[in-house]
Amino acid sequence: MHLAVAILASALVCTLALDNGLTRTPPMGWLAWERYRCGIDCERDPKNCISEKLFKDMADRLSEDGWRELGYVYVNIDDCWSSMERDERGRLQADPKRFPGGIANLARYVHDRGLKLGIYGDMGTHTCGGYPGTNLDQIETDAQTFADWGVDMLKFDGCYSNESVQAEGYPRMSKALNATGRRIAYSCSWPAYRGGLPPQVNYTQLGEICNLWRNYGDIQDSWDSVLGVSDWFFKNQDVVGPAAGPGKWNDPDMLIIGDFGLSTDQSRSQMALWAIMAAPLFMSNDLRTISSGARAILQNKAILSISQDPMGVQGKRLLQEKSGIDVYWRPLSDNGSALVFFSRRSDMPYRYQISLSKLDYTTGIYKMYEVFTGKVGTVEDTSEFTVSVDPSGVVMLYVFPPVKRHRQFHANAKLHGPAHFHHRGLDDAIPPGFL
Amino acid sequence: MHLAVAILASALVCTLALDNGLTRTPPMGWLAWERYRCGIDCERDPKNCISEKLFKDMADRLSEDGWRELGYVYVNIDDCWSSMERDERGRLQADPKRFPGGIANLARYVHDRGLKLGIYGDMGTHTCGGYPGTNLDQIETDAQTFADWGVDMLKFDGCYSNESVQAEGYPRMSKALNATGRRIAYSCSWPAYRGGLPPQVNYTQLGEICNLWRNYGDIQDSWDSVLGVSDWFFKNQDVVGPAAGPGKWNDPDMLIIGDFGLSTDQSRSQMALWAIMAAPLFMSNDLRTISSGARAILQNKAILSISQDPMGVQGKRLLQEKSGIDVYWRPLSDNGSALVFFSRRSDMPYRYQISLSKLDYTTGIYKMYEVFTGKVGTVEDTSEFTVSVDPSGVVMLYVFPPVKRHRQFHANAKLHGPAHFHHRGLDDAIPPGFL
Repeated sequence: MHLAVAILASALVCTLALDNGLTRTPPMGWLAWERYRCGIDCERDPKNCISEKLFKDMADRLSEDGWRELGYVYVNIDDCWSSMERDERGRLQADPKRFPGGIANLARYVHDRGLKLGIYGDMGTHTCGGYPGTNLDQIETDAQTFADWGVDMLKFDGCYSNESVQAEGYPRMSKALNATGRRIAYSCSWPAYRGGLPPQVNYTQLGEICNLWRNYGDIQDSWDSVLGVSDWFFKNQDVVGPAAGPGKWNDPDMLIIGDFGLSTDQSRSQMALWAIMAAPLFMSNDLRTISSGARAILQNKAILSISQDPMGVQGKRLLQEKSGIDVYWRPLSDNGSALVFFSRRSDMPYRYQISLSKLDYTTGIYKMYEVFTGKVGTVEDTSEFTVSVDPSGVVMLYVFPPVKRHRQFHANAKLHGPAHFHHRGLDDAIPPGFL
Repeated sequence: MHLAVAILASALVCTLALDNGLTRTPPMGWLAWERYRCGIDCERDPKNCISEKLFKDMADRLSEDGWRELGYVYVNIDDCWSSMERDERGRLQADPKRFPGGIANLARYVHDRGLKLGIYGDMGTHTCGGYPGTNLDQIETDAQTFADWGVDMLKFDGCYSNESVQAEGYPRMSKALNATGRRIAYSCSWPAYRGGLPPQVNYTQLGEICNLWRNYGDIQDSWDSVLGVSDWFFKNQDVVGPAAGPGKWNDPDMLIIGDFGLSTDQSRSQMALWAIMAAPLFMSNDLRTISSGARAILQNKAILSISQDPMGVQGKRLLQEKSGIDVYWRPLSDNGSALVFFSRRSDMPYRYQISLSKLDYTTGIYKMYEVFTGKVGTVEDTSEFTVSVDPSGVVMLYVFPPVKRHRQFHANAKLHGPAHFHHRGLDDAIPPGFL
C-alpha cells in the first residue's frame, strides 16, 4: 500500500522541481560550516581556518580517498570566506589573505579533480557571521559573480533580513542563477527562517525555485542535536515529506560523522536516518584525519544506494514503540524498500520482534540485507523475525522486491531472485547466489 | 595553596575510614548492571544474560587481556543473580539454571585467576529487580552466606525499604560483614536513596561503615547521563569531596566506556573526570568484544596512576568559563597534580589559553604530560599556554612536582627532575630524559 501511494506521489511531483537538471538524487559532498565555523585565525590555527588551503585539502581527499567515486562531489564553502568589502565594481570578493588565489582559481582546482565547488551567500544586509550580505539590488550581480567564478552550488542563508525581503529575494536569486546560463544548484535557507511549516512556508514554491532547502535549525556536534533535527523532520513528515523528489530536497543539515560527538552506533544512526529522509549528504568533518570507522560508515555502499535511489521518495517513520524502538521506511525503485529499526534506549541491545506484514508489506517472500553487518535473510511477510538494536543505534535492512507466493511454495524451497536488479553499489555487497 | 590544604585534609580523615583495610585506592574492576541489566533469557540471548558464564567470561578476559595487572581485579555481580526463593535454611541461593555451579564455585573460578568476586544484595524486602531482599533480621545470615561463599565485595542496594530500615540496616551489615572474619569490601547505595546530601546523609558515618557509596542516581548509556552524574558531583564537591579518602570513596557509578553511547572524546572525558573524582572504576561493558580504542582509554596507565594515587584526595572543579571550558584539578602525592580541561562546546576544537598561576600554582617551573597524546611540555607558573579541547572532550595533564625558580634561571636552561619520582605506571609513559 505504501509502495503504490509513494510511486504515485513521486510521479506527480517530479515535473514541478527547479528546472536546472541538477540534484536529481540528493546531493553529496562536503560543507565547511559545522566543523570549521567562522575560524579565521590562520596564523595560530592553520589547519582549522576558512581558507583556500582548507578547501584544496578537502578536494584532494575527496578525489584521492574514494569519496568522489561514491558520489561525494561537492566541496562547499560556507560563511566567512569573503572580504569585508565588495570590490570597486560592487562585487563580492574573497578575503585576500585567506584566499590569495581567489575563488575562480579554487573552482579550477576543484574542477580539475572531477569535483564541484559550492559557495555561500546571504539574502540580507550581512551574513550570519557579519560579512557582506546580498541586498535585493545586488542579487543579479552576485549570481553573475558566482557564475563567472565557475561556482556549482550556492547556499543562500537568511540572516539580517525579514519576511518580505526573503519572499522577494529567494525567488529572484533562483531566476538570476538560471539567467547566468551556468548550472548552479540552489540551496535555500529560507524555510528555516520562517519556521519550516505552512502556511509561512510554501513547499510547492520551494520545489519550483530551489534544489534543496534547510527547513530547520543548524545541526551541532552532539547526539542530542542529531536526534532533535531528525525528530523534527519525522514529526512533520506528512507536511515536508511530499515536497521532496528529484531535483528538490528537504535538507536536515550536515552529517557530523567523523567529528567529536557521536559514538559509532550514533554515527550509523545518523547515516541511516539521513538516507531514509532522502537527505543531502554533506559531510562536515576533517577528511585529512578521519578514522577508518567513520569513513566506513560514510562510504557504506548499500546505504548510499538507498540514499541515492533514483525514485527519490522521502521515507517516513512508521512506528514508535513503547519499548523505545522506532521503525522507519523508505520506498525504493523497482519495488525495493529500506527499513530502519532505531533504539532510543540507553541500557542494552534490545531484541525487537516484528513481521513485515505488521509494516504493511503483504506481497509474499522477501530477501533482506542488513547494511552494516552484511547479514542476509529471507522472510515471509507474516513471519516474525527479531532484530537486536543497540542503544542509540540502528539495524538497517535493504528489502528486496518481493517474490510472490506460489501455491506449492515451501519455506525451504529455492527462491528465484528478481531478474533485473541493478541498485548502484548494492550488487557487489550482496553474497554471490543470494539473489 | 590547594596542595597544602588538600594534604592536610587527607591526613585528618584517613583514620576514620572503615577499618577493614580494603580499597585504600579507588577499587577497580567490572560490574554487570549498566550493560547487562536484568537480562535473564539465557536461551534466546545467551551472551547477554546474567549467568555464571557471563562472569566467567569476564574473569577470563580480565585475567588474559591485561586488565588484572592494571588493577581491574573485581568481577562484580549485580541484581538478578539469585533464586526467587531462599533455601530451606533461609539463605540466599543463586538461580539454579543460570548459576548451576553456585556462587562458591564461581568465587573459586575468579580467585584462581587472581581476581575478586563481588555480589549484590538489597537492604529491603526485595531487590530493585524483584528478587529476595535482605530484611533486618536476615542481615547476619546473608553476610555469613557471602563470606562462606568467598565473596570479596558486597554492593548493598536500597530498593523496597525506608529511611529507618536503612538507618538501622546499613551500619548493621557493616558490622555483620566484619564479624564474618572475611575481608569483604562494602559498597552502600544508602546515600543515593536519601538524596545524597546532608543533613539526610551523614558522610562521617558513611566513611566509618562503608568502603564506597553511591551518592546519586544510576548512570545510563548516554553522554547526557555521564554529564548529569559528573555535574552533580562537582556541583556538590565541597560537601561530598572531603568525605573521600583511602578506604572510603564517593561512587559516581560505572564507566560506560566500550558501550554504545559515547564517542571517543566522550569516553576520554568520562575516564578523565572519574580519575579526577578519585572514583571507583567499575567498567560495565562487554570485554569479549570491546574495541581497541575503548580498551586503550580504559588501560591508559597515566590516567590509572592518577586515579590510584595513594594520597586518595578527591579532586574538584576549579573554573567554569563562559567559553564552555571547565578546569578540574586533583592533588597527587609527592606534590604532583592532575589538570583536566573539558569542553562543553558542540562546534569545533577550542583553543583555551591559561597559565598555571591562574589555577593557584605558584611555586616555579612545571613539567607536564598530556595523558592521551603523550605530549610533554615545560611551563613556568606565570606563562600562558594553549590547549586545544575537542567538543565534549578533554585535555588531561599530569603536572609534575614543581622545580623551584633559581635566581639565575633561564627559560632554556636544562632542568633537573625530582629525585624520587615513582608514580605507578607513569614512568614508562614518559619520554626518556624528560624528567
